Amino acid sequence: MRVRKRKGAAELIAAHSDIVFTEKADWESVFGNAQPLEIEVGCGKGDFIVGMAKKYPEINFIGIDLQETVISYALDKVLASGLSNVKLLLLDGKELEEIFLKGSIAKVFLNFSDPWPKTRHEKRRLTYKSFLKIYEDLLVKDGELAFKTDNCGLFEYSLASMSQYGMVLDRVWLNLHANKEFEAENVQTEYEQKFSKKGPIYRLKAHF
Amino acid sequence: MRVRKRKGAAELIAAHSDIVFTEKADWESVFGNAQPLEIEVGCGKGDFIVGMAKKYPEINFIGIDLQETVISYALDKVLASGLSNVKLLLLDGKELEEIFLKGSIAKVFLNFSDPWPKTRHEKRRLTYKSFLKIYEDLLVKDGELAFKTDNCGLFEYSLASMSQYGMVLDRVWLNLHANKEFEAENVQTEYEQKFSKKGPIYRLKAHF
Repeated sequence: MRVRKRKGAAELIAAHSDIVFTEKADWESVFGNAQPLEIEVGCGKGDFIVGMAKKYPEINFIGIDLQETVISYALDKVLASGLSNVKLLLLDGKELEEIFLKGSIAKVFLNFSDPWPKTRHEKRRLTYKSFLKIYEDLLVKDGELAFKTDNCGLFEYSLASMSQYGMVLDRVWLNLHANKEFEAENVQTEYEQKFSKKGPIYRLKAHF
Repeated sequence: MRVRKRKGAAELIAAHSDIVFTEKADWESVFGNAQPLEIEVGCGKGDFIVGMAKKYPEINFIGIDLQETVISYALDKVLASGLSNVKLLLLDGKELEEIFLKGSIAKVFLNFSDPWPKTRHEKRRLTYKSFLKIYEDLLVKDGELAFKTDNCGLFEYSLASMSQYGMVLDRVWLNLHANKEFEAENVQTEYEQKFSKKGPIYRLKAHF
């Protein structure tokens, strides 16, 4: 997601270093408990991760993004929610493996990731094999990767990429919003609400 | 595909025992050559298999169906085509493993298979694990399974079923008819022409 630079974003983030992290931390100390840890890679403005934290108080969540401005908007939502089981990570070029211990994450969420449609940008897609390798390292045994998108090309690519990596698809949805059973469980992003009217939302759950 | 019983179907089939088989045969003798062998499980009225035979004269094709009436319609098409690289198999309860040698098939095609949507009918779906086991046995090393359908639920099920069986997805199409590159390669069935106007056609290529 590209957004216009927000004035004062850096200062806002700096003033809430108990919520927005930029480096490795002892996450159990940060959260004050040893609840399972779930992360969203590319959390954007934070609708999903804050929504999940509200819905699942027994789990700790960390939303991760590269852009200061979007993290600052996600911070607004964390502050407004008053929740203590959701934190943010402004990655700023650091690798996930430097931030989290191997086998320390219960679930990885990817939501509406940048499709990078050009073949020469394949390596930037968050379901490219080098990223899958990172998720594999970070996830607990039988940990889950959940991915949803409205982008047909990225979903086609991701199914094949994950399969060829050796992942197992637990379940696939090709029209998520037509599935009543899942609707109760789904936490929507603003983007999802808007785009589900234009075409199907795809989703998958998989493990390594 | 359920069709009204055709009068004289049995007699027509019996009169063309060089095209419609009901038992194991020496397929190289039948075709008079050792070209690669590709089969369609559930060939219906034969549009696809006859179209493929016309397009790929260097390959031998066998269309397989359970129903006498539909095989008789497929026979009409084989006769009209004058092609010698396409034969039919009226299975009549016999198992594929009794008909073909292990590792003798280059590709298996499944097109618009019956979705059997009820959970209690899962075992009848042609992408259920017991069928995947049969295709695995019959296919040559690195042989290919190609599957297309307009049925969203069956495609969702099949992606997960194949993945959980250990198959690798080579490629997935979530809107086949929007893919210009594939259109030249695609052999459509009558059913496909009709239903592609109503919604997406899904396709996958996979191997064991």
